[in-house]
Amino acid sequence: MSNLAKACSILLDKIRDENPLIHNITNYVTVNDCANAVLAIGASPVMADDIDEVEEIVSISSALVINMGTLNQRTIRSMIMAGKKANELNIPVVFDPVGVGASKLRNKTAEEILSQVEVDVIRGNISEISYIAGVKATTKGVDAGIVDEKYKAVDIAKTVSNNYSCVVGITGEIDVISDGRRLTKIANGHKLLSKVTGTGCMTSALIASFCGVTGDYYAAAVAGIATMGISGEIAFEKAGIMGTGSFHISIIDSLSKMNSTVFLERGIIDEGKY
Amino acid sequence: MSNLAKACSILLDKIRDENPLIHNITNYVTVNDCANAVLAIGASPVMADDIDEVEEIVSISSALVINMGTLNQRTIRSMIMAGKKANELNIPVVFDPVGVGASKLRNKTAEEILSQVEVDVIRGNISEISYIAGVKATTKGVDAGIVDEKYKAVDIAKTVSNNYSCVVGITGEIDVISDGRRLTKIANGHKLLSKVTGTGCMTSALIASFCGVTGDYYAAAVAGIATMGISGEIAFEKAGIMGTGSFHISIIDSLSKMNSTVFLERGIIDEGKY
Amino acid sequence: MSNLAKACSILLDKIRDENPLIHNITNYVTVNDCANAVLAIGASPVMADDIDEVEEIVSISSALVINMGTLNQRTIRSMIMAGKKANELNIPVVFDPVGVGASKLRNKTAEEILSQVEVDVIRGNISEISYIAGVKATTKGVDAGIVDEKYKAVDIAKTVSNNYSCVVGITGEIDVISDGRRLTKIANGHKLLSKVTGTGCMTSALIASFCGVTGDYYAAAVAGIATMGISGEIAFEKAGIMGTGSFHISIIDSLSKMNSTVFLERGIIDEGKY
Repeated sequence: MSNLAKACSILLDKIRDENPLIHNITNYVTVNDCANAVLAIGASPVMADDIDEVEEIVSISSALVINMGTLNQRTIRSMIMAGKKANELNIPVVFDPVGVGASKLRNKTAEEILSQVEVDVIRGNISEISYIAGVKATTKGVDAGIVDEKYKAVDIAKTVSNNYSCVVGITGEIDVISDGRRLTKIANGHKLLSKVTGTGCMTSALIASFCGVTGDYYAAAVAGIATMGISGEIAFEKAGIMGTGSFHISIIDSLSKMNSTVFLERGIIDEGKY
Repeated sequence: MSNLAKACSILLDKIRDENPLIHNITNYVTVNDCANAVLAIGASPVMADDIDEVEEIVSISSALVINMGTLNQRTIRSMIMAGKKANELNIPVVFDPVGVGASKLRNKTAEEILSQVEVDVIRGNISEISYIAGVKATTKGVDAGIVDEKYKAVDIAKTVSNNYSCVVGITGEIDVISDGRRLTKIANGHKLLSKVTGTGCMTSALIASFCGVTGDYYAAAVAGIATMGISGEIAFEKAGIMGTGSFHISIIDSLSKMNSTVFLERGIIDEGKY
Repeated sequence: MSNLAKACSILLDKIRDENPLIHNITNYVTVNDCANAVLAIGASPVMADDIDEVEEIVSISSALVINMGTLNQRTIRSMIMAGKKANELNIPVVFDPVGVGASKLRNKTAEEILSQVEVDVIRGNISEISYIAGVKATTKGVDAGIVDEKYKAVDIAKTVSNNYSCVVGITGEIDVISDGRRLTKIANGHKLLSKVTGTGCMTSALIASFCGVTGDYYAAAVAGIATMGISGEIAFEKAGIMGTGSFHISIIDSLSKMNSTVFLERGIIDEGKY
């Protein structure tokens, strides 16, 4: 059992003890799942995106998620304002650049957020994080596309981590988490997770839930991503045979049953360095 | 069996007979659950929030829900316009002041709505209703916070009821419903209901469904709150062991199976006076 | 086995092979179900509605859905802009005129869309399509109301099809699909489908998924509508007894398990002419 896995498992218990409030500025597609995932892991969600209240809401929160899923002019301004306020108050910010690379608006918005807000964790798929790294990637809407093979996820994660002084999580068959120096690979998960919308968004919301109870955002990113991977595996075992609707519901079930014992038994977390 | 419980149970059958149209101006987090809860209990939901159509939509509806969950400048104007039109046409208005106390925008909006619209039922948690009562309460985002202990839910409900000449429902471990004179306590429900987002919003939408078939809004509030409590209990018995995802779905299942017999067998409704 | 049913069943396999990207400008009530339905049938959903990105997003997509469910001034402009761009690039457009007839805003918007965008498929209930046909209908919010009995669905479908040179699908107990010359009736489905919000919206999203892999939009409309009908039947058999929550989830399960064999065994597709 790695020290990192143990640290993550302790955070799981801590979320249920401390019940941190997580402010989500997110999309209208997966918002219900994000709220229920946050509740299932033991934190409390608050979804608020009006520019006249985001500063106050983030001020009473333990972490902020900025998710670009269905961004629009109104919410982009709120994202940046909330992010700046979070920075001012040392509240951790998790950034999910959904679909960056797919439109100029998304590219410009990601750039604006990254230049005006200091984000603590960026989580995305390989296409999204490659775009952030400045690597040419083909994106397919909000799904992972094909990235030039000479670039590897581990290198891309390191680049982005160094460029923005933050933790980077690239989720995929093997998840890669880096803080520029350390490198963790997680082998949990199930391919059916890509057949339910919002599993990425929920992962970002889980990372924020972990950030809400620790200053170690690297551990929080590993914990959030591994928690979703393990929950996906359990959900597949329990309900995968029934179809993607039941699998979807079973992910939330698994999150709500997650604890440090299950995490340590199931987590396939390979801790390393560059 | 109390007369009130019997009156509520009759309304349940009436909803399935009359299939009232319920106009919801609500949040994008729990809107799908609200629509499915309204359908499950036998009414028809319509979600419409553009200022250019809310007056027409409310005019063909049997009740209106104003839910502040993810309010913004655009929808606040629509809420007030729809509420005024409902008043003009004697269509009942249920107000769910989600998260009031958590931001100036929410406080100001609740005040605007309550000063410009005559609401027939207000439903919220103890923090929200305490704020409306003018009692200092700590809110935790959209969840119930801690209220100064010298104030009791029964007194707070009475105050708000008298101040706004409406029925007030405070949902919690013991639900309290008051019209300023009468006082009903409901002991149904399950603590897991607080681990699924939207159970409060759904309760408000159910109250509106009941308001759509009766002029007795006190009975409608009791019926809506008890229906959710009973459904939560049944859902826990059927699916609670599986986790909060399955429990969530089972709430809708239970609503869709609800009838006067189940209501009368299960309802723990204590009717009284001040 | 009809040739049309066989053609539809081949398209089912083709979606899973080609995984087309489907751009949805849709409502916030049923958007999560639409995304999961598109994923379940083997396509990829992208939901994007900001005017600054819809042209780019539709340009990388294989089909566009314009769904008026919770229209507002901001999204109406995006719908028209996306539709025009789709026309320019010969990308198929599926139009779901949710609740047309219920407000002037909806009527005006449907008119604007139909005058500015060449739509390839229109899908709605009998009230909505009657309104589009210019037949006086009573609508009940977004649900089907009563239509003057002298007008029949088959005639209404033909009228709308001829007026707008498109395929028309009227979903109901018996679904009617017409391209003005041909007429297909589908007897699949279950009445419980009307007790879950979004089954119509999901059907439109499925039609678009089929349009994304063929130029035969008549077959695509038949395939999408029959796929939902069959999935509803299977869902009822598997989970209907439990209630509408479980039935809802089972619809997605059934879509994710759908294949050409099930389609050909179950489809009750009556192909004909006027």
